[in-house]
Amino acid sequence: MLEVKKQISTVSIIGSGNVATALSLALKNSFVDIIDVFSPNIENAKLLAIKIGCSYVDDIKYISKISDLYIIATPDKEISNVCLNLTDVDGIVVHTSGSVPASVFSSLLNNFGVFYPLQTFTKNAVVDFKNIPICIESNSEVNTEMLLNLANKLSNNVVSINTEQRQYLHLAAVTVNNFTNTLYTIAHELLAEKQLDFSLLIPLINETANKINNENPYNLQTGPARRNDIPTINKHLSLLDDYPDYRAIYNLMSNKIIKKYNE
Amino acid sequence: MLEVKKQISTVSIIGSGNVATALSLALKNSFVDIIDVFSPNIENAKLLAIKIGCSYVDDIKYISKISDLYIIATPDKEISNVCLNLTDVDGIVVHTSGSVPASVFSSLLNNFGVFYPLQTFTKNAVVDFKNIPICIESNSEVNTEMLLNLANKLSNNVVSINTEQRQYLHLAAVTVNNFTNTLYTIAHELLAEKQLDFSLLIPLINETANKINNENPYNLQTGPARRNDIPTINKHLSLLDDYPDYRAIYNLMSNKIIKKYNE
Repeated sequence: MLEVKKQISTVSIIGSGNVATALSLALKNSFVDIIDVFSPNIENAKLLAIKIGCSYVDDIKYISKISDLYIIATPDKEISNVCLNLTDVDGIVVHTSGSVPASVFSSLLNNFGVFYPLQTFTKNAVVDFKNIPICIESNSEVNTEMLLNLANKLSNNVVSINTEQRQYLHLAAVTVNNFTNTLYTIAHELLAEKQLDFSLLIPLINETANKINNENPYNLQTGPARRNDIPTINKHLSLLDDYPDYRAIYNLMSNKIIKKYNE
Repeated sequence: MLEVKKQISTVSIIGSGNVATALSLALKNSFVDIIDVFSPNIENAKLLAIKIGCSYVDDIKYISKISDLYIIATPDKEISNVCLNLTDVDGIVVHTSGSVPASVFSSLLNNFGVFYPLQTFTKNAVVDFKNIPICIESNSEVNTEMLLNLANKLSNNVVSINTEQRQYLHLAAVTVNNFTNTLYTIAHELLAEKQLDFSLLIPLINETANKINNENPYNLQTGPARRNDIPTINKHLSLLDDYPDYRAIYNLMSNKIIKKYNE
């Protein structure tokens, strides 16, 4: 019987965007050997390869065949196509998507999984991976163990979850990141119209985020809707007469809160 | 001609809730002399008075008549009633509300204004006032100067704004605090249903809040709606079949983002 390989030592990176860049740098900083980087855009591939100190290709046919791990960090819709070019490798092939099922690989690969870092990445921002949750899923116990071992080198916050859990986690991440940022953008616009500086809101935004470290957000809800203070809500709605899109959001959010706390 | 008094040395506090408590403690820490505290609930009045080291009354008729400043930190709907009991004082009467116009006082008082601290207060949380914006408005330049001087003892972030600006600021504060907290609550519920710990989202929540320190949130938007990624949006909507309230919010927020960035 062959000895089961338990350690991921060599990695190939498919993609050169924000997640590919952040993950590559984190792996490099954890002394994991990145063999090569693929991007269809040769300039992007080169740029990332220089940061990492590895080779690069713009034709996926020439990516290393002997890496222990292939990390596909491309847009979701390209994952299944990319995978068609990795059917002849022995290493584990993972994607980094919050929403694509692990089963996208199941008819094509023997060793596959998901390596989902739960954070918002910006290309030029340096990220401390130690606190970033990494969510692992794979097709076998051995592969899961290997992926967990690797993830634990990068982060102190590694969990093994299934596809359904990951999809809800991704949805929750969209909720607290994308939609929260949209609320920030709306507030920015409202203040700019009235010659007020957005920085006035920053202490409040920070406090709002900090409070949930120690408390269920349900218990932290305040504001007119929480108090069922209809006159203030109506005043706010009238202030929003020129902002019909946000007026609709204000209305729906307030009704949600009223329903939750006052009925 | 009488010398114009430029300094607020003595304060009476009307109310004993979160704002009254936080402001009283901040004033005390800035060595401003709080004369007395009024609350219709004698136990609450006493509790706050002990913290501050001042006298307390449960009948507003007996509040000091010679304070330089009266801070009304009651629910909005009680402000005009409270004010009826302060028509015989010389000091400045202010409220702390984000949404009530300063003009609520104009037919009854000679010296009045607004002292609005822009933060979310919890009764037992110690607050560092130094970074909290305090928004000042009053009926005269002299009163504004006196209120600004006092506010500058408490905070490094004091601004003079008018009623309309304050009302939009309050609306923006509701947006980034109350509605963001509701998004956190929704995410908490989604994860709990799938046996996932809410703490997985905390690094993302913190990063989302931190990013806006240096950048217009408009430029930080990411996610499926930002990319006009309809398959992922539809997948999320289908995950929300059992959450009709949140499904409607998800839909509206996503449409707002798509419209903003992709049209």
